[in-house]
Amino acid sequence: MRYELYYWPEIQGRGEFVRLALEDAGADYADIARLPQGMKTMMAILEDGDRADPPFAPPFLKHGDRIVAQTANILLYLGERLDLAPPDEDRRLFIHQLQLTIADLVTEAHDVHHPVGGGLYYEDQKPEARRRAKEFRHERIGKFLGYFERVAAANPKGPDWLVGAHASYADLSLFQAVEGLRYAFPKAMAKHEAQWPTVVALRDRVAKRPRIAAYLASDRRVPFNTNGIFRHYSELDD
Amino acid sequence: MRYELYYWPEIQGRGEFVRLALEDAGADYADIARLPQGMKTMMAILEDGDRADPPFAPPFLKHGDRIVAQTANILLYLGERLDLAPPDEDRRLFIHQLQLTIADLVTEAHDVHHPVGGGLYYEDQKPEARRRAKEFRHERIGKFLGYFERVAAANPKGPDWLVGAHASYADLSLFQAVEGLRYAFPKAMAKHEAQWPTVVALRDRVAKRPRIAAYLASDRRVPFNTNGIFRHYSELDD
Repeated sequence: MRYELYYWPEIQGRGEFVRLALEDAGADYADIARLPQGMKTMMAILEDGDRADPPFAPPFLKHGDRIVAQTANILLYLGERLDLAPPDEDRRLFIHQLQLTIADLVTEAHDVHHPVGGGLYYEDQKPEARRRAKEFRHERIGKFLGYFERVAAANPKGPDWLVGAHASYADLSLFQAVEGLRYAFPKAMAKHEAQWPTVVALRDRVAKRPRIAAYLASDRRVPFNTNGIFRHYSELDD
Repeated sequence: MRYELYYWPEIQGRGEFVRLALEDAGADYADIARLPQGMKTMMAILEDGDRADPPFAPPFLKHGDRIVAQTANILLYLGERLDLAPPDEDRRLFIHQLQLTIADLVTEAHDVHHPVGGGLYYEDQKPEARRRAKEFRHERIGKFLGYFERVAAANPKGPDWLVGAHASYADLSLFQAVEGLRYAFPKAMAKHEAQWPTVVALRDRVAKRPRIAAYLASDRRVPFNTNGIFRHYSELDD
């Protein structure tokens, strides 16, 4: 049964974490809002007041009649089905925990350029963004990437992946987080990322997976841009 | 086997969502960091560089040798065990999705008083907090509570609970979210909460559950205060 992904068509955003899992698995899926009339279909689902299981916001996944929303929850659902999470509960929960921690990083990366609120333009909160960016670059990036460095380094199966001997959706998501940070803060990352060699090597390992490499080279990969979650504004970098 | 909850002892914070589930179920648990020497035990786990499954931050739960972190993930783990989530995958995922949406609300409620960053004091970001509070009160509270209103109202088993015919951990968490919003923004909530009658009735239903009522009246319930996630500063209210 085909997976239908619903997400804003012009950004990577949170939908990208789901796209990477579907692409890596070679899953049969459609990125609905990027098809003609697709936005209309997506909005109709969001606005359908009769549904007992409405999504709060994109991304959401439709699989048959089932709708699953919230990025980490979608990946929890897909993990077992796409062989991107192990079957045992311990590791499944730990991978989900890592995904939720990546989600926290992503929220903070967004709030760097929108500290006063998502309802205002970046241009209306530039001084505040500059203050928040400084703390994010100096304190938060290292806190998060240092944590993932420690997790991969302590993996009893070796440091190739975060958990166990195989790639999970959390590895794909960590790749995406590093890509986003490099795009948004190229100077800060160039200066500091050597502190997290295991994370950088893991990022490279994901980039070389054949289906991921093919995806990244295709036009299915939306380029990073300043409408997404990770945004590059030079005044917010080092 | 006894559950061990690890969380900052002087605030409700994110740990409270876990406390409510454990209390409602009458589970055998210890709130470790509130016991003598408990903070030391918690910090030792957080700083143990050899663990293959370290938590990123409190709260975390220890159950035998297993450690589970991230609030929503802890509740996912406890849901089945404490009979606070149904066994079928569809509803289990939907309840988890609702919990993740509550987590988003909680993060936004925190960022109202810390828009520029968690590393600075509130006193160093008061004008920014005032701007963010305005958007939060005017746009975000209604967006979230309106969503939960719609979910409960569309529940095929009736509007008593968010999902199905029984209370789940998401209902307990929604109670806590409403309590937090009422504490932080008493004027805004008094003015607007009648718009979400199903949510308010659900909150009342949770408050009356015997074990929850006993817990709320006990000294195990840490009072709301201005070190927690929900904070009352009159200048941030209506």
